[in-house]
Parts: sequence; C-alpha cells; structure tokens
Amino acid sequence: MVDKLDLIKEISIPTPTKIMLLVIDGLGGLPITRTGKTELEVATKPNLNHLAKNGVCGLSDPVSPGITPGSTPGHLALFGYDPVSFNVGRGVVEAMGIDFDLERGDIAARGNFCTVDEAGLVTDRRAGRISTEKCTELCRLLDGLGIEGIKIIVRPVKEHRFIAVFRGKELVPEVSDSDPQQVGVVPRVVTARNPQAERMSAVANRFIAQAKTVLAKHHPANMVLLRGFSRRPSLPTMPEIYKLKPAAIAGYPMYRGLARLVGMQVLETGASIKEEFVTLKHNYNDYDFFFLHIKGADSAGEDGDFDRKVRVIEEVDDALPAILSLKPDVIVVTGDHSTPALLKGHSWHPVPVLLYSKWCRPDRVEEFSESACILGGLGRLPATQIMPLAMANALKLTKFGA
Amino acid sequence: MVDKLDLIKEISIPTPTKIMLLVIDGLGGLPITRTGKTELEVATKPNLNHLAKNGVCGLSDPVSPGITPGSTPGHLALFGYDPVSFNVGRGVVEAMGIDFDLERGDIAARGNFCTVDEAGLVTDRRAGRISTEKCTELCRLLDGLGIEGIKIIVRPVKEHRFIAVFRGKELVPEVSDSDPQQVGVVPRVVTARNPQAERMSAVANRFIAQAKTVLAKHHPANMVLLRGFSRRPSLPTMPEIYKLKPAAIAGYPMYRGLARLVGMQVLETGASIKEEFVTLKHNYNDYDFFFLHIKGADSAGEDGDFDRKVRVIEEVDDALPAILSLKPDVIVVTGDHSTPALLKGHSWHPVPVLLYSKWCRPDRVEEFSESACILGGLGRLPATQIMPLAMANALKLTKFGA
Repeated sequence: MVDKLDLIKEISIPTPTKIMLLVIDGLGGLPITRTGKTELEVATKPNLNHLAKNGVCGLSDPVSPGITPGSTPGHLALFGYDPVSFNVGRGVVEAMGIDFDLERGDIAARGNFCTVDEAGLVTDRRAGRISTEKCTELCRLLDGLGIEGIKIIVRPVKEHRFIAVFRGKELVPEVSDSDPQQVGVVPRVVTARNPQAERMSAVANRFIAQAKTVLAKHHPANMVLLRGFSRRPSLPTMPEIYKLKPAAIAGYPMYRGLARLVGMQVLETGASIKEEFVTLKHNYNDYDFFFLHIKGADSAGEDGDFDRKVRVIEEVDDALPAILSLKPDVIVVTGDHSTPALLKGHSWHPVPVLLYSKWCRPDRVEEFSESACILGGLGRLPATQIMPLAMANALKLTKFGA
Repeated sequence: MVDKLDLIKEISIPTPTKIMLLVIDGLGGLPITRTGKTELEVATKPNLNHLAKNGVCGLSDPVSPGITPGSTPGHLALFGYDPVSFNVGRGVVEAMGIDFDLERGDIAARGNFCTVDEAGLVTDRRAGRISTEKCTELCRLLDGLGIEGIKIIVRPVKEHRFIAVFRGKELVPEVSDSDPQQVGVVPRVVTARNPQAERMSAVANRFIAQAKTVLAKHHPANMVLLRGFSRRPSLPTMPEIYKLKPAAIAGYPMYRGLARLVGMQVLETGASIKEEFVTLKHNYNDYDFFFLHIKGADSAGEDGDFDRKVRVIEEVDDALPAILSLKPDVIVVTGDHSTPALLKGHSWHPVPVLLYSKWCRPDRVEEFSESACILGGLGRLPATQIMPLAMANALKLTKFGA
C-alpha cells in the first residue's frame, strides 16, 4: 500500500474541485428479525436515496473481510492508508485529539481513571465516568512526576479519560497494557515485549504505583489503567499524497487527532450534526476536501439501540440538503466500520458506500442500504480504494503511464 | 498473506463456538447446452438452498482469476493459507496422506505404476489401476534400494499410486517430473532446475532405471512415473493461527495428508458421504472446527459425468440435515476449485460459497448456484478470506486496532 500511495502522489494534481467525505461512524448494521431490515434500511432517508440513485454504490471492507476494525484503522483506510502497514497506537491518537504536541521520542499512553476495591480488584474501568472537571483536577495531581530521568506529562481528555506522555531518553513503546479490559481482576503489570522496552515498562509500573498512592483518597477515581503505549508514526500527509487542502469537522477528540495525524486542518466546531454542517458552510471556501464525522450512529450501535441509530441516520439525511446546496464536486457517504445494534459493538460486516459526482458511472442502485449496495457499481472494495475513486471523480488524478 | 496470518493470529481467541467447513471437491461447474444449467443448478438441493437463502453467498477464487488450482493450493486457500506463498509439493502431500513420517531433509515424490510398450512409450499412466494389494507387493520389490548413499523408501498409497522417499544428505527438491502427463511418449528424464539439485536428479534417474529392470516382468505395472519432488514445508498450524482444535474427516489419503500438514487431527472414517457424516456426529463434542471433504463431485467432473456429479451434490444435500441438527455456529459450504464435467478436469472458474451463521448479514440469494452466487453479499472473494469470515461469524476474532 505504501507503493499505492506513491503512485497516487505521482499522478495527483491540485484543482479547484471539492470533495466531501461524510463518515457516519459505525454505519453498517444487521437486520433485526422483526422486519428483516438493518438500521439503514429502516431509516427514512430521501436525500441519501437520491444520492444513491444518481451516484454509484458498493460495500467496502475497512481492513479485509472478517476483520473487525477499531476506529483508527477504520479511518486510516478511508483516508487511503493501508491500516495494517500504518498501525497507529491509541495513546498517540488520544494525544493528538487534545492537540497535545508530541515530540519525537515521546511515548503516549491512553489512561482511564478507574475504581479498585480494597483487594485491588478493578470494579469500574471508568470510575463512574467522573466529570471532565474532576478528571482535570486529578490529572494536575499526577502531572509532572519524574521517574528515572523520565518526565511524565498527564493531561485530561474527557470524563474518565486522560493521556500520560513519557518524555526522556531511550524509551521504546513495545510494552503491554496495564488495562485488563475487564472488571473483577487486578490491573496488569506492564511488561516489555523486547529487552529494549524494559526501561519503559519499569517507568510505567512505577508511575502506576505512584498514581495509586496519590489517588488513594479520591474514590471512585482511586486508580489508573494505561493502554496503547505508542510513538507518533511518520505518515505521508494527505496534502503530500493528494495535493489537497483538507479540513476535518469532528466533535470527538480522537477523530480530530486522527485527522491531524494525516495532515488535515482541524476546524473548531460544535459536536451536533447541525453544528458540524454549519461549520462546513462557514469554511467551505477555504478548503478543497472535507472530512465530516458523525459519531452518534456508532454510539447508538454500541449501546444496542437500534431505533436511536435509525434516528441518527435520519438526522443526517435531514441535514444533507445543507451539503448539497454547496454543490461539492464529489460526495462520498460511508462509515469507518459497521456497528450493528444487534452486536452492540464494531463488527466485520462490510460498510455501505456511495459516491456521487458528475463523472461517476451510475448503477441500478435505487436506495442507500446494505442489501442494495451489494449490487452497486463499486462492487465490494477495500476502503483504501475510496480516496482514489473520490480523487478521480474530482478530476484530480492524471493518467498513469503513457 | 504471511502478514495477514500474523494479524489473524494476534486477534483470534478460543471460544466454545463451532465451525463446519464442508468442501464439495470440484463443486463449481459449467452449464450444458441442453438446459443452460450447471451441475449445481440442475441438482435438487432443498437443504443447500435453505442455507443459501438464510446465509450469505459469493464466488471465490482459490488462487486468482484465471488460475486453475490443483487440489493442494485449492485446499490451502480454504484453510486460509496463500497458496502461492505456501507451495506444498505433491510428494509431500501423498506421504502425509499415508501417515508416513517425513524426516527433515527427506525428498518425497508421488509415484504411479504405469505401462510402457516395447519401445518404452507410456501406454497407460495408471497401469490399468492395479489393485492396492498388487501395488503393495510391487512396492516391496522397490523398497530399500540404496543409490550413492541415498536410501530410497517406497510405500504404497492406493491402486497404482505410491510414494518414493529419498533419504540422505545434500538432496534438494528442485527437479522436474518424470511423469509426462500423457501417453504415447517416453517418460521424461528428471532434470535439475539448479546446480544444487543435480545429485537429486541423478539419484532419481538411477532409481527409475533400476525400477524398470525390477518391474520388467510385472506387466501391466512394468514402469514407474515420478512427480512432485518436494520437501515438507514448515507451515504455521491452524491451532497456532486460529486457536482452533480442528478435525478433518476425509476418505482420501491426500486430503488427510493436507489436513495433517496444517495441524488438524485426522479422524478415522469410512469414505462414503453417509459414513463421513456419522464420523462427524461421533466426534462433534471433541473439536471446534471440522473440515469435511466430499470427493465424489470432483471425480465425476474429471470423468466428464455431468449426471453423476449432479447425483453426488444431491446426496450431500440429502445428508445435510445431519449437520444442521448438530447446530454448528457457522457452516461454510464450498469447493476447493471448479471441475466442470464439460471440461473433464479442474478449471479456473470461481467457486460458489455459502456461509450460514446467526451473525451473517443475509443477502437476496435464494438458491445455491453459480449464477445466484454472483449477486451474493460476499461478492467475489479470494478463497483465503473464507476462514477469516468463518472465524468472525463464530465470534472468534477480536477487534483490530484501537
């Protein structure tokens, strides 16, 4: 895939045309028995259907068939990066989401404040979702510790979530998580995956021990869990690859972080669908690529709330004329993965995708749905192919070869 | 693909769910003019249609479009191994099929007893399919020869088929076959494909010459043909990759050998469809993955017997309720390649595949046939993706990436 990006870089050209990538997080679903229809199939969505009917549709695999992607690989694939080659750690993504300026060599970990009982067993991995204010206060208690010459910077993210950045010499990120991802057990000891990482694991374990002491009287947030130790990778940026001036409109920190990582300008925005669309309108003249992220469908799917996911899709559909009136040259609507309410989590099922442009070759798909997209003109495609298709339809790719 | 297996290994988890992989060898066909229908389309198969209607279907390419696979690459792909990276020689597969314990460095070749005329031209590549008893007797005559410090072990397989194992120092398998794969010509001289293989070719040619002398009075089995010189490869096993406890139910030695090579437990079984299904039932509680191999459809296709292939498919369909009553979590029905009766041999045509599970996203396919599968929700997929899909549907794969 690195090779594929090199190819795109070679043939991409800047043009005044504009591309709109609308990502409805967790878009794909599964049919419920009552109706035999998925969330997307149940939703009333005249505007999405109009785009599907006049555009070209398909089903995409974010990583490959059978693989359930996390949000990071799901989005990297949509931006055109092979998500297996470019594996970005959770710590880095969280740090970027709060605009934290990671230096070369920094190791970032995603942290949770959590609750442990007297035996040290985790009873709540999220410490009852403490407020962001409380989180900020607790982070101040932990911030600035020095262990073996390593400075540890702690910053709040949202609710129970924070980042811990380990800054100093000779740190490598190949260590395991302390987060056991379940309750009723003690947090894990951070262990080195190779001999070079032993310094990192030692420092992490000492930090965790000190945090436990500091937090002892702050029940329910009386312990921390760390995961996703990682270093900022060096990715070719979207402006380099595609010659685009890309902007991201996303309410959630993690997606803002991801967008920044690939070189997008992250716009200030409210997090509701309407607010995001307003942000788009205000900034429309200044960029030629917009990544607009809708979180609600995924959250509803994760909660197993089929009807709420339907309503989020309907809300997007209602707001869609605001995009259409701007007349972008290419509109892509898809998701970063499926999140069927039935499974209450991300899944491996392929994701509906529609591409609408003056230059697409329409198919016979009449509505935007999983079952209709099976028969679409884009066929079944790896999600990494969506960006080249969007670029081509915006006439931003020149001929390859003589 | 090696990387893809590493990825699967990283995210696979053991669970109590069970996967059933039913391989109807040579399943795919071509339509005959009379009806315009393939073998599968002509067959009466209510149970397969039921699974197709409630599952998800597609067409798979064992190697890649246009490539006609042998049985080994066809099966390796179904087990999730890229059949081009993991090329297993025929000699090795035959040796494993009869439980022969290949040592490191051994070179195994598949042998046929054949008939040659006075001019030395091959008149029957299978020596009139001599009995297994006769084969055993002749193998004893050839077994144990020593040539240039190399010991040659000869073992019967079935009918005219045997294996010759060359054991000794400095042997490499890069030599050509002596089997000309046609009649009316002399057997080929075994030639080295690189300088290191010259010792192997010299020993093989001397063995063949000695065999001709020994067999002179044993018409019709008065000569041998060797092919598929190969050394046992080191493959990651299915238990390692998938954390499965896999069992194989196959009547034919070669498929038993292949299954053993990838780490399956090979169960004792009768070779008829009914007997194989009984074996499944008796062992159902002890494993979480079953590879059940039906040979008859391929044999009928190879013989150009359209109607017999139809009957084999119908026989499988009749027996299918025995599988359904066990309620495996995932059922996959497919073939290792197509064997259209019209072509009297393996072919490159993609193979119908159906996957049935509680968690699959059904499509609009109503029957299990080549023409219906074109429109299926699995689309057109490489056969190596079938195992990840089966694993995902059995909820045996965790999320990739944060």
